[in-house]
This record gives sequence, C-alpha cells and structure tokens, in this order.
Amino acid sequence: MNFNLSNSIAVLERTPVVLRALLAGLPREWTHRNEGPDTWSPFDIVGHLIDGEETDWMDRVRIILAQGPDRRFVPFDRFRHLQKNRGKALEELLDRFAVLRARNLREIRELQLNPEQLQLTGEHPAFGTVTLEQLLATWVTHDLGHLAQIARVMAKQYREAVGPWEAYLPVLHR
Amino acid sequence: MNFNLSNSIAVLERTPVVLRALLAGLPREWTHRNEGPDTWSPFDIVGHLIDGEETDWMDRVRIILAQGPDRRFVPFDRFRHLQKNRGKALEELLDRFAVLRARNLREIRELQLNPEQLQLTGEHPAFGTVTLEQLLATWVTHDLGHLAQIARVMAKQYREAVGPWEAYLPVLHR
Repeated sequence: MNFNLSNSIAVLERTPVVLRALLAGLPREWTHRNEGPDTWSPFDIVGHLIDGEETDWMDRVRIILAQGPDRRFVPFDRFRHLQKNRGKALEELLDRFAVLRARNLREIRELQLNPEQLQLTGEHPAFGTVTLEQLLATWVTHDLGHLAQIARVMAKQYREAVGPWEAYLPVLHR
Repeated sequence: MNFNLSNSIAVLERTPVVLRALLAGLPREWTHRNEGPDTWSPFDIVGHLIDGEETDWMDRVRIILAQGPDRRFVPFDRFRHLQKNRGKALEELLDRFAVLRARNLREIRELQLNPEQLQLTGEHPAFGTVTLEQLLATWVTHDLGHLAQIARVMAKQYREAVGPWEAYLPVLHR
C-alpha cells in the first residue's frame, strides 16, 4: 500500500493497547525470558519501544520539518533501555509507553502534515536521504516488527513443551 | 519453560483480546491484504484460528482423555475458513473467535486436569504419539505464531513505503 497518514496513525495508536492486552499480568516466564544470549525479552522490547518514543521518532520528525542546515539524525541508541529499566515493573513500562505514544500522536495530528511536508527529507546516519513519509512508515513497521518479535520470543519458551509439533511451527525456527 | 497449565491458559485467554485490540476498526488495507499468492491476510488468519476452536483443539483433547481404542486425530483442515468466511466482516470473526475460545477454556478449566492426565496420549496423523501436554503447549504456540504472522503481514504492506529502511527491518524479509 502507498503511505497513508491516517492508516499509519491507526496502527500506531493501537500498539500500546495491544501490548497491554498481550503482556499485562502475564507470569514472568513469558515476559522476562529471551531467545538466548544477547536477545531481548518482551520486557526489553517494550523498553526499546519507549526509547523510540523518547529519543528517536519525534526528534527525527522535527529535524525534517525544521529543514535546518544540518538534517542528520542522531543514531538511535538501541541499548539505552537495558540499563535504564533494570528492576522496573513491566506494567510501569506499558503505562509509560502508552503515555508517550499518545503524546507523540497528538503532536503528529496537530502538525496537520500536508503532502509536500511528507516529501521533505533528513539524513539518516547510515543510508543518507530519507523522506518524512518513509520515517513515518518505518515507525509503523518498527512497531509491527517488534510485536511479531514479542510473539516469537514467547512462542519459543514452549519449544520443548510442544514435542514433535515443533516441526510444524515455523515461528520456533526463526 | 516446562509446560504449565495456568501459564498456558493465561496466553490462550488473551489472544481474542489482543486480536481485537490490533485489528478491530482498522482499514481493509491492513486487514485484507496478504504476503502474495497462496498466503493469508490477517482476516484469513482469524478465520483459521476459529477453525481450530471449532474442529481441532478440543476434539483432540477429548480423544486423548477418552483413551478409546482409536486415538487418531482427524487432520486439521487448514483451508476450511477460506470458503466459509467469504464476505463476512472481520468484526464478526473476532466476536466468534472470542466466544469459542472462552467456551473452550471454560471446558478446559472444568476438566481440572491432573499431571497424569497431561501425560495421556493420542495419535497425530503425521508424527504419531503425542501427549495432552504437548497438544496444549502447541495450542498456545500456534496462537503466538499466528499473532507474529499477522504483525508480519501487516508490516509488509509498507515494504515499499519505508524506502531505504527496508534493510533495517528484518520483519520485511521473512
């Protein structure tokens, strides 16, 4: 599908509700286990999504819209959350994510972005010129990718428990 | 993690709520598009989950618990939903799935399964002897696999829209 702002917001505003429906109140065996060394648990992934709201998406939106002389994005620190959230409760993270996402989407709506603005560009530190539209599409896709990851990490906690069905469950082999 | 009945029910009872939070009210571009020929849209996947509730999981539970002379499972018709749900509204499917899942989990709870029962076996048409515990773990993992699939199928609708970010989004390459 071509990029569509209202369709994008429809997904972005659902993510905090989906994550709460999936994770709130679940036993820690589901929420705090990962896929192996240097991989993330659902708890870690929610922390990473919070970092995106705090440090990444809206900063980049603002850099693009300002069209200043230096439009380079600050690289997204993908590991900030690992220290920052140690000892916190998952419910606290789910609440924080919901608040930040709602605030950011309110700002996006208030900007009333027009088609010309969606084609304005910034500079990604790794691959150069990108449009605001591509940034917003990536925000949506990033949410969905991490939702898929959370479901996969949870599924893998039962890799042994499913016995011979393992062969029929592609999610266990990714 | 070892199989745990209460942890399993915790995931199974969340799935209808998660799917409604993710899909209800979304534009059809998200819910009715797939990954290409012979793949499923989120709408199709909800239909497949309904078929599991109607024809597969509980039938197999009952076959195992009855311990009759023929404990072979009927193969799961993975394509039944494609005809059956043509023209239906996604919201209708989400409601139906929630009703069926709640009914099935009520039956599971009422069975008050003990550890010995969880080790009783049935015969899978493809790979032979499986335990009730493995069947229930598979039910959970099957839910999570299809949730990951729905998120992936949705993400892929923005494969072009994300521009050069495509390289950074593994969900687009599965």
